[in-house]
Amino acid sequence: MDLESWMRDRRKLVEERLSSTVEGGFPKPFDAALQYPLQTGGKRIRPILTLAAFELCAPNADSARALPAALAVELIHTYSLVHDDLPAMDDDDERRGKPTVHRAYDEATAILVGDALLTEAFQLLTDDTASSPAVRIKLISELTHASGFRGMVGGQAMDIIGGANVTDIDELTALHRCKTGALIRAAVRMGAICAETKPANLDALTTYAECIGLAFQLADDVLDADEDQGTDGAPSFVRLLGVEGTQKKALELIRTAQEALREFEGADALHALAEFIVNRTE
Amino acid sequence: MDLESWMRDRRKLVEERLSSTVEGGFPKPFDAALQYPLQTGGKRIRPILTLAAFELCAPNADSARALPAALAVELIHTYSLVHDDLPAMDDDDERRGKPTVHRAYDEATAILVGDALLTEAFQLLTDDTASSPAVRIKLISELTHASGFRGMVGGQAMDIIGGANVTDIDELTALHRCKTGALIRAAVRMGAICAETKPANLDALTTYAECIGLAFQLADDVLDADEDQGTDGAPSFVRLLGVEGTQKKALELIRTAQEALREFEGADALHALAEFIVNRTE
Repeated sequence: MDLESWMRDRRKLVEERLSSTVEGGFPKPFDAALQYPLQTGGKRIRPILTLAAFELCAPNADSARALPAALAVELIHTYSLVHDDLPAMDDDDERRGKPTVHRAYDEATAILVGDALLTEAFQLLTDDTASSPAVRIKLISELTHASGFRGMVGGQAMDIIGGANVTDIDELTALHRCKTGALIRAAVRMGAICAETKPANLDALTTYAECIGLAFQLADDVLDADEDQGTDGAPSFVRLLGVEGTQKKALELIRTAQEALREFEGADALHALAEFIVNRTE
Repeated sequence: MDLESWMRDRRKLVEERLSSTVEGGFPKPFDAALQYPLQTGGKRIRPILTLAAFELCAPNADSARALPAALAVELIHTYSLVHDDLPAMDDDDERRGKPTVHRAYDEATAILVGDALLTEAFQLLTDDTASSPAVRIKLISELTHASGFRGMVGGQAMDIIGGANVTDIDELTALHRCKTGALIRAAVRMGAICAETKPANLDALTTYAECIGLAFQLADDVLDADEDQGTDGAPSFVRLLGVEGTQKKALELIRTAQEALREFEGADALHALAEFIVNRTE
């Protein structure tokens, strides 16, 4: 399949709707600040995974039914970047070549923008009348567990507060299962939940998602190692396994992810996305 | 009625369950930081309002059914205090005589604690199996609208980003309707929604909540004016209406709030809470 054009179409669908999720805020300067981090591009891998999982499980349905779930995941991802970039956290001045929110505006605005995007993610799922209340509850439950202190925020806390003490592969894996893995897992599962697929399919997609989530982090560590030439003090898989060992583990995970799809027909997009995740260059 | 002992019982119910909402986080130092702002006391007015509204609308039901909603409101209130206290926002070193989260721990921890409490509020409502999925969706919708950029966060943004420009009573009222009013309104409405009360009751309680929410802010401004002797530059009702004018307006609002309860029997607690809100000394 032509993954590139397939992804471009999905990315377009996501980006067309993304900024309208926080329209009509006030006062005026805050309105623009809310839009700002949503318009800085990015690969949109998480919402695309949601749409791909939905399309696989409900091949005859309109993809738009999974769009609120896809957008909610991207809002959570975006809020986490806005807060992570803050001076007290990673202290980043730029993201994707543009000033971060606290540089373009100020710190107070960046804190409030993150809080607003986080809240809006749940509002979007709540108000999504295309899904039944029971499905909406499952979606919100999935997203809260993935993004709260047992998931992404917990992983962030482990990284920032306890990161320096991570010395073995199991601890590092546990950290990344929370920090980046949980949201990728939720992205895939939410697509399947929107489709109200059978439990066996959800289980298979969960295995797929857990493998690509960890592979995503391994690939990130390899990319960072190339950039930093290993001078960065943060714990990484490359420091524990070396570049080759990390790449090998990523490829094993991608193979396991793809094996989990064997019972599905028409899983080309998810197969291709798994490969994209380890082969990307940024 | 003996409001004091009635409130003490409800506060006990809320506090017994509040810290268990964020138990089992990791790593260890973050676990303690999550508990910290939940254990600093406070009047717990918002969750008590939720329980009071529920008890009024469902006099024969167990109050525990409204407890998840009450706790979710208090988690949102607590997260907002943790983020508001940050150096980039109000820069407060103490709250209720104890160091604020970023002083007791550090700024990164305070940002993550706020994010975690915010997310946990929605998780609590999602996982609340005592209410049907349809009721849970209504509760989450109520809370997201009240706390997001159209509500509390928007009010904060107006205050911090545009606060200095607020010069008339309508603008100041609009600001506080978002900043403090929206969550108090949601607290009351969520109790009524848990009870699945009829629309006329919900409307009456909404009027009650809107009036006491604004009266709460007027009373706050009077208390602050006493403390600061008017030297504070922030826009306040006292600066626009004077102390007496502000007190008069607060009493009018309390009367309107109490009139809205006229169709109810057994609304003693809500009557007393309305008076408590304007007569409190802290």
